[in-house]
Amino acid sequence: MGKIEALFFDVFGTVVDWRSSVARALEAALGPRGVSADWAAMADAWRARYQPAMEEVRAGRRPFVVLDVLHRENLEAVLAEFGVGGLSAAELDALTRAWHRLDPWPDSAGGLAALRRARIVAAMSNGNIALMVNLSRHGGLVWDAILGAELAQAYKPDPLCYLRGVEALGLQPAQCMMVAAHNDDLRAARALGLATAFVRRPTEHGPRQTTDLEPAAAWDVVCDSLTELADRLS
Amino acid sequence: MGKIEALFFDVFGTVVDWRSSVARALEAALGPRGVSADWAAMADAWRARYQPAMEEVRAGRRPFVVLDVLHRENLEAVLAEFGVGGLSAAELDALTRAWHRLDPWPDSAGGLAALRRARIVAAMSNGNIALMVNLSRHGGLVWDAILGAELAQAYKPDPLCYLRGVEALGLQPAQCMMVAAHNDDLRAARALGLATAFVRRPTEHGPRQTTDLEPAAAWDVVCDSLTELADRLS
Repeated sequence: MGKIEALFFDVFGTVVDWRSSVARALEAALGPRGVSADWAAMADAWRARYQPAMEEVRAGRRPFVVLDVLHRENLEAVLAEFGVGGLSAAELDALTRAWHRLDPWPDSAGGLAALRRARIVAAMSNGNIALMVNLSRHGGLVWDAILGAELAQAYKPDPLCYLRGVEALGLQPAQCMMVAAHNDDLRAARALGLATAFVRRPTEHGPRQTTDLEPAAAWDVVCDSLTELADRLS
Repeated sequence: MGKIEALFFDVFGTVVDWRSSVARALEAALGPRGVSADWAAMADAWRARYQPAMEEVRAGRRPFVVLDVLHRENLEAVLAEFGVGGLSAAELDALTRAWHRLDPWPDSAGGLAALRRARIVAAMSNGNIALMVNLSRHGGLVWDAILGAELAQAYKPDPLCYLRGVEALGLQPAQCMMVAAHNDDLRAARALGLATAFVRRPTEHGPRQTTDLEPAAAWDVVCDSLTELADRLS
């Protein structure tokens, strides 16, 4: 692992617990309006529209727009799905920004800080720069750079996303390691020559999660936290 | 100043002392080869080619290339000017990376850290992302985001550079303040609606500096260090 100079982090699910945070934000915004719902299910429904929305961009059916735009459109669809109406444009904007205030997993801030002592740590997320900046300040996460979708104008697992990040750091793919809780993300990174680390996040999708519970290939590192990753790479 | 949510920093000259650092790197690289020169004058000559090289991009005579490319081309021209030959491509690459290891001014790391407690701090430099990442790790500088030339694919004072940064943070120009030791940089930012802070760096160009010794307009803040700026904005 001595050749690895930069670590690229998937963020949603790998570094932050989006589901609990979004469920809480939905309850805080809609509860006082008299809405009663399974907030975690509503968070799941919002997230379920994430991949299909990005797929429109990946497939070339729509020009690149940042994730805040997709989150806002998807929120409107989810509220309709749950029969919730009457929010103003400003209220919809504010609720969309729930994704800017996701709490990190307990090991994330400390793990990133430890990893950053020896290597470049960069966000390699489909989130836009404003979202990453706000989420990171909220959670005490320090990055050397925010790479990813907005810089590449493409959504993972589009190869452009990883390659633009590698290029921006002036490195070769083999000098970079993709860190993710998702096998698909690592599969795309490995195909381009990046090293790979799988972090188990068995409750990203709640207590009954069925996907990405275990590594689906022989990734270079498999671990249970970013602090464990720091120990393994040191 | 309560509305200011993000501070954009010019870096070369404002945050780091490029001249002393580059002179030292030239001496370290060329001295052992038997070259004897006025190293500060050689650093000045290298820097003198910076604006004309970027102007080729600004004027549309050349597609955008990152600053590492311009620094490398300019190094070859300066070495020829000083009658120095015989460096290999790898040696030229390594010397070009002198710009990735510029020392900060004594107040920079502490000032940025203090400013970052209350506001987003972002690099708004003509340097590329790799250069900014390496220089910041070298000098202990922590940013929330690296904006600037590479993100915008344009060089300051091209308005695109500032506006792309504002947009990436999801803010309005009036919510951002440009911080620079250069009146031209602040003039361009103010014309777009950003707030402005002038930092006196009277030895950026050495002991006989004649430019940018004082503010050329009534900038919103005028100060002598980033720690003073933090005091003034708190």
